[in-house]
Amino acid sequence: MSRRLIGLPELEDLAIGAAVLGTGGGGDPYVGKLWAQGRIHARGPVELIDADDLADDDLVIAAAMMGAPSVIVEKIPSGAELVTAFQAVEQACGARATAVMCIEAGGINSTIPFALAADLGLPVVDGDGMGRAFPEVQMVSFAAHGLAATPMAIADEHGNVTVLRSISAEWAERLGRALVVAEGGASVLAQYPVRGLDFKRTAIRGTLSLALEIGAGLRRAGRQGKVAIESLTHRLGGAVIFHGKVVQVQRETAGGFVRGTVVVEGLDTHADSRCEVTFQNENLVAIADGSILASVPDLITLLEEESAHPVTTERLRFGMRVYVLALPCAPLWREEIGLAKAGPRCFGLDLEYLPFEQRLAAR
Amino acid sequence: MSRRLIGLPELEDLAIGAAVLGTGGGGDPYVGKLWAQGRIHARGPVELIDADDLADDDLVIAAAMMGAPSVIVEKIPSGAELVTAFQAVEQACGARATAVMCIEAGGINSTIPFALAADLGLPVVDGDGMGRAFPEVQMVSFAAHGLAATPMAIADEHGNVTVLRSISAEWAERLGRALVVAEGGASVLAQYPVRGLDFKRTAIRGTLSLALEIGAGLRRAGRQGKVAIESLTHRLGGAVIFHGKVVQVQRETAGGFVRGTVVVEGLDTHADSRCEVTFQNENLVAIADGSILASVPDLITLLEEESAHPVTTERLRFGMRVYVLALPCAPLWREEIGLAKAGPRCFGLDLEYLPFEQRLAAR
Repeated sequence: MSRRLIGLPELEDLAIGAAVLGTGGGGDPYVGKLWAQGRIHARGPVELIDADDLADDDLVIAAAMMGAPSVIVEKIPSGAELVTAFQAVEQACGARATAVMCIEAGGINSTIPFALAADLGLPVVDGDGMGRAFPEVQMVSFAAHGLAATPMAIADEHGNVTVLRSISAEWAERLGRALVVAEGGASVLAQYPVRGLDFKRTAIRGTLSLALEIGAGLRRAGRQGKVAIESLTHRLGGAVIFHGKVVQVQRETAGGFVRGTVVVEGLDTHADSRCEVTFQNENLVAIADGSILASVPDLITLLEEESAHPVTTERLRFGMRVYVLALPCAPLWREEIGLAKAGPRCFGLDLEYLPFEQRLAAR
Repeated sequence: MSRRLIGLPELEDLAIGAAVLGTGGGGDPYVGKLWAQGRIHARGPVELIDADDLADDDLVIAAAMMGAPSVIVEKIPSGAELVTAFQAVEQACGARATAVMCIEAGGINSTIPFALAADLGLPVVDGDGMGRAFPEVQMVSFAAHGLAATPMAIADEHGNVTVLRSISAEWAERLGRALVVAEGGASVLAQYPVRGLDFKRTAIRGTLSLALEIGAGLRRAGRQGKVAIESLTHRLGGAVIFHGKVVQVQRETAGGFVRGTVVVEGLDTHADSRCEVTFQNENLVAIADGSILASVPDLITLLEEESAHPVTTERLRFGMRVYVLALPCAPLWREEIGLAKAGPRCFGLDLEYLPFEQRLAAR
């Protein structure tokens, strides 16, 4: 049995580490940290439990923000609506939850479940539905294994609450997104009520302890960005696939997503080369000089050169010096059932998925 | 106590009469009639009860289709989703309904509550929330009197069910419309759970028996269109404000509504004159040669010249010969609380409401 307490300092590491796994999405770590710190400051630290601590019939429910990260950073909820959404799903299930879970890794979506857990006096379970961040409701390990995304509840800051029961996670995405757009572009939700047995069987385990470890590593390295990044790629089996300066950012917030591209002009070993990263909340594909370096479902994360801190897509700006990292996704996403939910074609990309390690070896 | 049974022949009259009150919207009478007839044929006639038959704490829930009428005529639900939506509202209220109500008058929205009532073995109460048709959720007598539109449930033909609890009827409109658009442009819903006491206090009473009477009158007149129309305007205190031939129809289905204009070129006493009627599902304003003839909340209905049958906005076509009728709205809509919900400015029309009788007298 592995348990630990998440207090104010741990949240700082968690937010940064989860933003690395958030691959450009999942929300800004600074905003996410501040929000959860406020709740934990008021209510005390939150227990992080291992999936094995769950009884088979325990109920676990995910809490998250849905919408364009560019809106989320401007529209932080009061916290009350998280409790409302969570309890609406409990009521729809006719059962009380024994733990809160994160649906994805990200600066906000890995930290707000702790804010909620602090308010409810519940633990957070160490694992999530992605092991990274993805933009849509159905891109979740539970859905890949045939579990339902609903009952799902969406609550906004005005006091509107909606409970959806959909025939598929894809329909939960479509209807949920329509509501979120109508509510101003971002709202909180509770979704994927999952039994302990199913969580143990289908979650991506250990995402939160990994995020904590990544965050602590970056903190300890301080301003030694390059050292920290080498240690990170070594630990995660990743690679620096590009290094350069942001020279162009094109970004549009519409339909509940932020979509766009960032162009990085190469420096040092990448001089005379340009890398273009396309994103839909999260980074989807990195292409340099006509060849694909990495694509979803593998993780593509931009780290600011000096601090080695992750840069979310909505914070990208001209002149930033960044390293572009590729990190291997959880094994599920390289299997057929994973690629069917979150392979390149699920994002409208006309390309075959190849693990980035294979692409790298072929160059 | 006034009770009557609505069987197959009554449905025919009801659909036509309600389409007259539907003022271009509320759905096509032919489609609405066929649908409800199927259910009543299977389950037997439905009792139409008077509002005074309701006990004060009886629960009445409205059933309707929401969306653009141009989509509704192409996308008739199976009926099962009406039951699903209705029962979802019952469950959210923690009580069983004792009657079904129509939220508005219209060829479909006055008849599908009978289809549902046949399936549930419930009566329909004689009255509605408009006494005509309006395009939006908050344009309802109950909302004008401060009653809640929610819990409101929307169900689609796929099996998706959503239960909304909103802070206002305007939010129920915004969120409901977003869902309906995401579901393909039209879905069924149950809304405005109202107690018997509140129904008696705030409903527009007798709309259904009035629709039955109008429909029977038009049927008896047969092909004597002009006679039927004169009798109709006399009975309702209305007037023929224009007569001519449709020479132009501009119509767009978007955002869950059908919006557009129809231009009628005058005949006989209206020769050398043109009348333009603007609509948002329902007819909103009729303008001839620069002067307003009638506007919401008064009823503007187009009747086909020969048959005197009402023409819904989605059925308008070039060459139709029509009478344009103005009929007085229910007194509520001429009061301040009514105009605040459904006056011209609620439709983005930059004009002051004047009862059409005053406009007519001033000409």
